[in-house]
Amino acid sequence: MPHLHLEYTANLPGLAVEKTLLRLNNVLMASGQFGSEFDIKSRAVKVETFQVGTSLSPRGFIAVKLSLLSGRSPQVKTQLSESLLAALQDQCEWPADIQVQLSVLLVDMDRDSYSKVVIG
Amino acid sequence: MPHLHLEYTANLPGLAVEKTLLRLNNVLMASGQFGSEFDIKSRAVKVETFQVGTSLSPRGFIAVKLSLLSGRSPQVKTQLSESLLAALQDQCEWPADIQVQLSVLLVDMDRDSYSKVVIG
Amino acid sequence: MPHLHLEYTANLPGLAVEKTLLRLNNVLMASGQFGSEFDIKSRAVKVETFQVGTSLSPRGFIAVKLSLLSGRSPQVKTQLSESLLAALQDQCEWPADIQVQLSVLLVDMDRDSYSKVVIG
Repeated sequence: MPHLHLEYTANLPGLAVEKTLLRLNNVLMASGQFGSEFDIKSRAVKVETFQVGTSLSPRGFIAVKLSLLSGRSPQVKTQLSESLLAALQDQCEWPADIQVQLSVLLVDMDRDSYSKVVIG
Repeated sequence: MPHLHLEYTANLPGLAVEKTLLRLNNVLMASGQFGSEFDIKSRAVKVETFQVGTSLSPRGFIAVKLSLLSGRSPQVKTQLSESLLAALQDQCEWPADIQVQLSVLLVDMDRDSYSKVVIG
Repeated sequence: MPHLHLEYTANLPGLAVEKTLLRLNNVLMASGQFGSEFDIKSRAVKVETFQVGTSLSPRGFIAVKLSLLSGRSPQVKTQLSESLLAALQDQCEWPADIQVQLSVLLVDMDRDSYSKVVIG
């Protein structure tokens, strides 16, 4: 906890994905909401097959999902979401000819049935 | 909003994935539930490693997840789910020797902490 | 129903992924919670791009998500989660020099809007 998933469409070659993940993890740590930096598990997936809307205009997206153990306040969640979105906007020289949608979603994970172990 | 995820197992070569995404997006627009076609962000992922059940019979699946901002009625959600499933069934010459399970799941996204920006 | 997603980082070459999925499916069947073995749909995704925390120490993770139709008790969900985690720990010769985090998350799927069909 937390888990972060980042999906990005394949038409955004200007996105430095690994650097972006590190940046987002630093944003999460700076929020003061998480005790240990190594708890933050983030991954990125390039989306090769996608369709935005019903037109064939060049479009792309980056979708971030942050999953937290349940119990945080709506205010905290909104703040985390906005902080991630703000950081994300700085991470790419956005292509001039593609409409890109950036979004951040927060998801509660059921605390009672979440189980975890650390090896090594 | 909305986000659509389609997973399909690698043993379904008859599935025209890009055409299917466009078809599903058109189904969503035709529902009248969404204001702007470009809001619909859909992606497909081929699942190379999978196991259906505990036998080694040839099986596959397509799993669609539609994520909506919270607030829609159960009736609307059921109707969207059934419309997507119906459209999906037409999208493939299903292999004769593989049992294929198609499913559609609807997920509410927390409206208060969802943030978004459009670039370009 | 149920759906199981397993993500594993690319620095865990000792993980026999297909065998692991079969093992987890057998754990689910042994729980007595599911009527038909072929309902269990599991998939694994190798995560090539990831960042654990904010340091550059070698780290990895396996994250399992089990999605169930809503309605099961907290006790059942906790038991399923712990059973999956226990089975997962046996599935790999864990690398000595990498901190690996294993986690299992349970997610409720909205029963009313879940639709499904079986072909073949």
